[in-house]
Amino acid sequence: MTASPQLTSDRITPAPGLQANAAPPDSEQLKAMDAYWRACCYLAAGMIYLRENPLLREPLNLEHIKQRLLGHWGASPGLAFVYVHMNRIIKAHQQSAIFLAGPGHGAPGVLAPVYLEGTYSEIYPNKSEDAEGLRSFFKQFSFPGGIGSHCTPETPGSIHEGGELGYSISHAFGAALDNPDLLVTVVVGDGEAETGPLATSWHSSKFLNPIRDGAVLPVLHLNGYKINNPTLLSRIPHEELASLMRGYGWEPHFVEGDDPMTMHQTMATTLDACYAKIRSIQQQARDGGPLLNQAKRAIWPMIVLRSPKGWTGPKEVDGHKVEGFWRAHQVPLAGVRENPEHLAQLEAWLRSYKPEELFDAEGRLMPELKALAPTSTLRMSANPHANGGLLRRSLRMPDFNSYALDVPKPGVQRAGNTYPLGVFLRDIMAENMTNFRVFGPDENSSNKLQAIYAVSKKLWLEDYLPEDEDGGELSPDGRVMEMLSEHTLEGWLEGYLLTGRHGFFSTYEAFVHVIDSMFNQHAKWLSITQDIPWRAPISSLNLLITSTVWRQDHNGFTHQDPGFLDVVVNKDPDVIRIYLPPDVNTLLSTANHCLKSRDYVNVIVSDKQQHLQYLDMDAAVRHCTKGLGIWDWASNDEDEEPDLVMVGCGDIPTKEALAATALLRESFPELKIRFINVVDLLRLLPEREHPHGLSDRDFDGLFTKDRHVIFNFHGYPWLIHRLTYARTNHHNFHVRGYKEKGNINTPMELAINNEIDRYTLAIDAINRLPELQVKGAHVRERLRDQQIECRNHAYKFGIDLPEIDNWTWPF
Amino acid sequence: MTASPQLTSDRITPAPGLQANAAPPDSEQLKAMDAYWRACCYLAAGMIYLRENPLLREPLNLEHIKQRLLGHWGASPGLAFVYVHMNRIIKAHQQSAIFLAGPGHGAPGVLAPVYLEGTYSEIYPNKSEDAEGLRSFFKQFSFPGGIGSHCTPETPGSIHEGGELGYSISHAFGAALDNPDLLVTVVVGDGEAETGPLATSWHSSKFLNPIRDGAVLPVLHLNGYKINNPTLLSRIPHEELASLMRGYGWEPHFVEGDDPMTMHQTMATTLDACYAKIRSIQQQARDGGPLLNQAKRAIWPMIVLRSPKGWTGPKEVDGHKVEGFWRAHQVPLAGVRENPEHLAQLEAWLRSYKPEELFDAEGRLMPELKALAPTSTLRMSANPHANGGLLRRSLRMPDFNSYALDVPKPGVQRAGNTYPLGVFLRDIMAENMTNFRVFGPDENSSNKLQAIYAVSKKLWLEDYLPEDEDGGELSPDGRVMEMLSEHTLEGWLEGYLLTGRHGFFSTYEAFVHVIDSMFNQHAKWLSITQDIPWRAPISSLNLLITSTVWRQDHNGFTHQDPGFLDVVVNKDPDVIRIYLPPDVNTLLSTANHCLKSRDYVNVIVSDKQQHLQYLDMDAAVRHCTKGLGIWDWASNDEDEEPDLVMVGCGDIPTKEALAATALLRESFPELKIRFINVVDLLRLLPEREHPHGLSDRDFDGLFTKDRHVIFNFHGYPWLIHRLTYARTNHHNFHVRGYKEKGNINTPMELAINNEIDRYTLAIDAINRLPELQVKGAHVRERLRDQQIECRNHAYKFGIDLPEIDNWTWPF
Repeated sequence: MTASPQLTSDRITPAPGLQANAAPPDSEQLKAMDAYWRACCYLAAGMIYLRENPLLREPLNLEHIKQRLLGHWGASPGLAFVYVHMNRIIKAHQQSAIFLAGPGHGAPGVLAPVYLEGTYSEIYPNKSEDAEGLRSFFKQFSFPGGIGSHCTPETPGSIHEGGELGYSISHAFGAALDNPDLLVTVVVGDGEAETGPLATSWHSSKFLNPIRDGAVLPVLHLNGYKINNPTLLSRIPHEELASLMRGYGWEPHFVEGDDPMTMHQTMATTLDACYAKIRSIQQQARDGGPLLNQAKRAIWPMIVLRSPKGWTGPKEVDGHKVEGFWRAHQVPLAGVRENPEHLAQLEAWLRSYKPEELFDAEGRLMPELKALAPTSTLRMSANPHANGGLLRRSLRMPDFNSYALDVPKPGVQRAGNTYPLGVFLRDIMAENMTNFRVFGPDENSSNKLQAIYAVSKKLWLEDYLPEDEDGGELSPDGRVMEMLSEHTLEGWLEGYLLTGRHGFFSTYEAFVHVIDSMFNQHAKWLSITQDIPWRAPISSLNLLITSTVWRQDHNGFTHQDPGFLDVVVNKDPDVIRIYLPPDVNTLLSTANHCLKSRDYVNVIVSDKQQHLQYLDMDAAVRHCTKGLGIWDWASNDEDEEPDLVMVGCGDIPTKEALAATALLRESFPELKIRFINVVDLLRLLPEREHPHGLSDRDFDGLFTKDRHVIFNFHGYPWLIHRLTYARTNHHNFHVRGYKEKGNINTPMELAINNEIDRYTLAIDAINRLPELQVKGAHVRERLRDQQIECRNHAYKFGIDLPEIDNWTWPF
Repeated sequence: MTASPQLTSDRITPAPGLQANAAPPDSEQLKAMDAYWRACCYLAAGMIYLRENPLLREPLNLEHIKQRLLGHWGASPGLAFVYVHMNRIIKAHQQSAIFLAGPGHGAPGVLAPVYLEGTYSEIYPNKSEDAEGLRSFFKQFSFPGGIGSHCTPETPGSIHEGGELGYSISHAFGAALDNPDLLVTVVVGDGEAETGPLATSWHSSKFLNPIRDGAVLPVLHLNGYKINNPTLLSRIPHEELASLMRGYGWEPHFVEGDDPMTMHQTMATTLDACYAKIRSIQQQARDGGPLLNQAKRAIWPMIVLRSPKGWTGPKEVDGHKVEGFWRAHQVPLAGVRENPEHLAQLEAWLRSYKPEELFDAEGRLMPELKALAPTSTLRMSANPHANGGLLRRSLRMPDFNSYALDVPKPGVQRAGNTYPLGVFLRDIMAENMTNFRVFGPDENSSNKLQAIYAVSKKLWLEDYLPEDEDGGELSPDGRVMEMLSEHTLEGWLEGYLLTGRHGFFSTYEAFVHVIDSMFNQHAKWLSITQDIPWRAPISSLNLLITSTVWRQDHNGFTHQDPGFLDVVVNKDPDVIRIYLPPDVNTLLSTANHCLKSRDYVNVIVSDKQQHLQYLDMDAAVRHCTKGLGIWDWASNDEDEEPDLVMVGCGDIPTKEALAATALLRESFPELKIRFINVVDLLRLLPEREHPHGLSDRDFDGLFTKDRHVIFNFHGYPWLIHRLTYARTNHHNFHVRGYKEKGNINTPMELAINNEIDRYTLAIDAINRLPELQVKGAHVRERLRDQQIECRNHAYKFGIDLPEIDNWTWPF
């Protein structure tokens, strides 16, 4: 069955119309909500302080207090406040919703309502809904063997840890894409709001199609302070902040104050208004019929919630203002264990929430409060979208073999490596028009993946100009996401994957460093989830790194940086994979494998320019399955022990290593050279260090125990040493790679400067092999002359010698 | 002489008052400016295409065309337009100004006016102001051995390459800080404006003190397109964009159109208005007397320049719209070499600028045009602020010895390592109140550097609340820069250093990855400047990485990432330095050295918590001078060949390695252990690979040729292998470090999980030394028991055993 581009329309829910205008809560309801919120605040404080006496049924004493007080109180009450109010909306409208806490360090404010609505106990039965369960729930917080103080993967309902700040909104939008029925509530801390990634991610609403996508409701939480400082947005004039939000394309609604009951009233009214607005936008967009390609960007509502940091906590401690000040950031009464007054103040604070009114004799939340929360999968903590693997359907994949390039003879013809991948992606897109997207910062065409636009164009919801018709490839229903922000794209993609869908991201090699830190955090998330049985596996994050270091003729030195791989290899081996396919068919085979995989970050390095082709599809599949191997057609060691091993890893280094091999074989036909190509970089690691690692026996079989190995690598050469230092023959590994020797160069000149060129490699071999010392002298001279000629030609004409550009494998 | 905090007031120039309202240009002047601009556009196009016939004195033919057409035309005309108009302002007001091109890939539009005002020829005499010089100037562009197509360091007047997008505004603000007389014009591309770092950097104006700092005039250049896409900000409604800019705190002025003469008129009027506004803000702030601490944030003017991409270039090529569309991004007539029609079109285009009216017989710009540019150092390309090393004064440094901690016995007392550094920085600040600043994302107090606030507080120009008095440490004249954006801080610091000043940046270890990419770009800039004799050396970028991986009790796994060092070591060895001082005195000595150095990025890793102290100041200085060495007091090999070498690198790993040494010596008094500490990480590299690298002889002398070396490292362990793989004894190096085994842990539990703890190290030694195999068996058992006890205690009480926390060196 092939899906048509119109398929999505089947899944559009009509907006619920009148239902959006549910009655506002009366004062009884608000009082109950306040009680629910007090229960949340009580739990949030309790988990920071208490290891015993969880319901304060006894007078508080030191025995009840944790030995080490860890956690973040400041953002917690505000987070719980939003959560409780969202519960009312969910119940009133049977609305599917999830909750992202930008201030992940306010996890107590999220964990509390998650526990109170029962999900926590369902997943972790020993954290049951009773006094003993509560005690255990408190104790595990920020405690060895327990859970951290952010919304870590162990948190039901979380798809956003918030340990590193800046990505809450982009994660939220990633979750909302292609989920028309979903409402994603995202609380943005005013600290986080100062980061660059967050600042630009407000523009995400320009990429939300109100027909086929869900809604995102951001709540900018101005609690006023970071660790030690006021926040910028909390101290600018009201009108300036409103102008900023309107300028970003949002309709701001303000909820400001500190009196709980007044704030409940305002929040409820505001949330009703925002919800009605969201539904009205959707209704208006969807009621005209599902004309996806006529959708327009909407001005969505957002909320500015200004409430005190550490709201309802101690107002003052030791004469210092705490509530509503930065001193409420972590543990507001830090001296509880040493200072009896602090202990008394803590008890008074905890009792101010009146736990005896909130929990029954067993320690369960009072039934009338429990009734305020939604049930089953309407609970934000139990919504399957936040455990996206549950909803994940495998990609419908065409057979990648049918995109094969015919390669009758290795090393002769040229092709752009990424273009056929674009064709493959196009057809994958065609079969998965509701759960697959392609991401790239203004570069999918530049990266030669433009074939995809035949099936789905670039999403564009702003105004159109007539000239856009001429190759603009824009459409309101496009599924290719392009914005010049690697941060935002990566955030969208992560949010999309974490909610159970599939994606593919291509980006310039040098600038993938922009998201080093996001990669780190996602890899850490995946690593932790390996040990969380209830988290269903999600699709891998597939990252194509292209426009690589060796082809930067337009751009020069700033665009030369293959070091992302060095960042990647530091992460948990169970979740990282690195591939450097050298040609079209190996790239197709690799991409096919990656797109089917789960719970990894797959990094594929492939340049976008024209390159020599080596393997037909059968050979490519065999080669990629092994991950590395001898290319017999380029070797003449014929199952004997070779005199020299030549290795290529990466498209351009492979070509130069082959050319070096040819130069050597032409001059020294008796020399036995084994040629190895490496696609799966982590095969080089020992098997104990990575699931793909080769056994020492296999490694030695390939790379020999004692022959010189000239290893021509795509990236920084030291990385190969780092992967192979424990191997038998490591001391004979001579690695060439990029060494920051660049400026504005022709490709060959750049190769020569960094010593990955054919001449340097061949000369290196001659120098290292004793049997060539004498008879090789004149060859070496000739190769040096050729190298100089290459340089001179580049300097004179600005291009490489045609015979360099057009070189083919001669045998 | 000690400077007082008030010193800055001496340097404040009174605002020039009436001078700000110079007469608007008449139509003759505008015509001349247009001619000047046409000359710029002609040059910009010429450098992309021409290798001969630079003045079109002959009919254009293929011989005149470069073999490879490289470069970016699209942004060039707009950049030159702004440059030419700024020249008028500079001349009219004798205003010191510099120019930053956010779209660095529009370098032709900058190089052109730089050449026309004569600076280029002064610096590069063979690019003289005549036909032959012009030919050479054209040819070198995007040509091997020449210059790249961004505003690379070779560009006179550039402090911002623009190869990676996002940092133009933060660089501009860094340049303006403490330069009250300087006006920094910064063109922001609408592509760049989509990046996160740029999006938040608009807030920089909230950190500009109009009394002591200069002004920044951003020109948001809406040329409408990126490589293949429209830009977001060019397609949102006018009012929305105005609202965004007002929300960011700016006063937007719009210059929109495509008719050159109308645009000249509008731009001139607008620039006059903006300049008058800037001067009026400064006058108002400064005239009340230099009350730095009463300054307020101003609403500064900015310009939105909407002009066609590739303005004045080919309107249409092969039936496709080019001018005003993304097809103008790089080379608009790419088929010139193959297609005679393209060649004809190119000739018509170039002749449309009427070069014969612009250049005299010699090929020099006509004198009446030349007169439009300012002269000498008022030329933006020759302003010394853009070659900041020329203006750099050495820091006045107190003697760091006077901050020494008294350490009578190694390994016994405890102190916070970073606090005394804060005291040292405080006194440096006091003596350098106009050219030194300290940067940190809301973390200088968290990082225990708060002593500095006694001399200079955190800069804050927004509203104040009464509670800020209680430890807020805020002031309008503060010199400590805190904003929750590592990007913005790094950008400010780079701009500050590049204009000849000094700075110090402290940040959390895990989140320094946020600026990996900025580090890469700055290191590349420094690397290139090593070979540019006219660029005077600038101060090093000093980066203190603290709140490290091993002490994340509050924050857990997301905050554990020591991998920045792996990024750093990939860059040019001539510009990178890495230090891991283990205690207070080594940190002081290291910081003293770094603050005096030039043209490096110095990375210092030091945790902020309480740690054991090892060296008195004399020993610390000796140790840091060597960079690594044997700690005799912890060793018992007494100049003999040891049985085992134990190495610590980093504060916590050093403590654990010492404790392991003590455990071994207690159990096996006859075992000869050599204890080495490494401060200067790159000493481990061979001398041929880094200026600090040890000779093999020295290395072998320290680490032996054949003894087991247990190396306890702060970061990812593979990094040590990468640095030492070529050493004689490398196969005996057993490196321990962080391996991503973290969650919420006590410090000891985290150490055990990652095998850097004393027990693992000692057991490892026992296992490796044949002589301990038998007698060591029971010791090994005991150590394992102790390790288990540590874990159990952590799991039970949430804290480490007191004897672990309070361990001291026993001998």
